[in-house]
Amino acid sequence: MQILCLDLEGVLVPEIWIGVAERTGIAELRITTRDEPDYDKLMRRRIAILERENLGIADIHAVIGAMDPLPGAREFLDWARERMQVLILSDTFYEFAAPLMRKLGWPTLFCNFLVVDERGRVVDYRLRQKDGKREAVRALHGIQFRVIAAGDSYNDTTMLGEADAGILFRPPENVIREFPQFPVTTSYDALRAEIERAQARVRG
Amino acid sequence: MQILCLDLEGVLVPEIWIGVAERTGIAELRITTRDEPDYDKLMRRRIAILERENLGIADIHAVIGAMDPLPGAREFLDWARERMQVLILSDTFYEFAAPLMRKLGWPTLFCNFLVVDERGRVVDYRLRQKDGKREAVRALHGIQFRVIAAGDSYNDTTMLGEADAGILFRPPENVIREFPQFPVTTSYDALRAEIERAQARVRG
Repeated sequence: MQILCLDLEGVLVPEIWIGVAERTGIAELRITTRDEPDYDKLMRRRIAILERENLGIADIHAVIGAMDPLPGAREFLDWARERMQVLILSDTFYEFAAPLMRKLGWPTLFCNFLVVDERGRVVDYRLRQKDGKREAVRALHGIQFRVIAAGDSYNDTTMLGEADAGILFRPPENVIREFPQFPVTTSYDALRAEIERAQARVRG
Repeated sequence: MQILCLDLEGVLVPEIWIGVAERTGIAELRITTRDEPDYDKLMRRRIAILERENLGIADIHAVIGAMDPLPGAREFLDWARERMQVLILSDTFYEFAAPLMRKLGWPTLFCNFLVVDERGRVVDYRLRQKDGKREAVRALHGIQFRVIAAGDSYNDTTMLGEADAGILFRPPENVIREFPQFPVTTSYDALRAEIERAQARVRG
C-alpha cells in the first residue's frame, strides 16, 4: 500500500515567509535558516518583527490569502489524489497554510502551529516534534505503508531518505550536488513521471 | 495539535457490501461478520460469490459509482476539513471506496486493497495490518497528535478507545450498551457539537 508525502512550500505553494515579506514590504522577514541557522532564534526574530510592525494574525491571513498555489500545483495534486493517498508534510504553521490549503482543496496537512493571544498577536510557536517530516514517514512505515516522498530543499532530505522512494522537485544546486541519490525534477509532468516510476518500483 | 479520525462506512457513506448486494440483487453478499465471524473466511466467501456471478472489478465500480455518500456527509466533512486535519480510517478496500471518495472531495483514506488479476477479477485481498484503525491512532500519537475519533460500530471501538476522545455515530444498541464511555450522536449536528467539545477538552 503506497502513500505520497509532499512538501508544501516550493512544491505546491511559494515560500510563505518570503511572500509575507514581499507583500508587507518588510524585507527583514526574508531571513531564512541560511541567515540564522538556529531555528528557534529565527522564529523569535520573526515574531519580534511582527510585534514591532504591529502585524497580527488577521493581517497575516489577509496577506497569505492573496497568495496562490504554484501554477499547475492544484492540477498535479488532483492527479495524485485520484491515484493514491496523499499527505502534505511541512515545517510551516497551520495558521499560515490555511488560505492556501483551501485553494488546494483541503488535502491533509501535518505541520506546526502558532500561539496567538486574545488580541490576535503571534506570541509563540509550537513544533509538533523535531524532524517531524522524517518521523511522519517512519510512523507510516510502522503502519505498513510504502512511502514515496517529494520535496525541494535541505530540510526535506531526511524525509526523502526515510521514504522508499525520494524525489527532488526544483531543488537548489547545493542539494542536487549533496544528494545525488534522489532523482531531480523541475516540472509537474516530470514529477508525475517520476512518481509513476517509483510506484512500479516500490510495489508490494 | 489535533487530528480527526473518521470511520467511513456508516459515518460518511452507506455500508458498501450491502449496497453491492442490493444493487446486484445477490442477497448472499449481505453476509457480514455477524454471520461469519472469521474475517478471512468471510472475504473468501465474498470473493467466491463474485467469481461465481462473474462480477469483475469494473462491474463493482459501476455498482458503487451509483452509490452516494450519506445525506449531509459531504457538508459535515467540509466543515471538519476547514477546522482540523482529517484522516479516514476504514476496513474497506481502496478499489471499493474510490467512487465515493471522489464524491467526498478525496479526503485521505487509510484502508486495505484488493488483488485484481489481468482479466479484472477480484482474486484476493490484502489487509494493511491487523487492527489497522487502532494502529493508525497509535502511530498518530507517536508523532505527537492528539486524536479525536468517530465511528459507528464494534470494529471502531479499539480506535475510539485508543483516541484521546472517542465518539459513537449512529451505533447499534449492543455497542451503546457495551461501551457506555463513548458519547452517542445520531446526527451530523450532534457529531459536530461533540467534536467541538472534544477539541476543547483534549487541547494541548
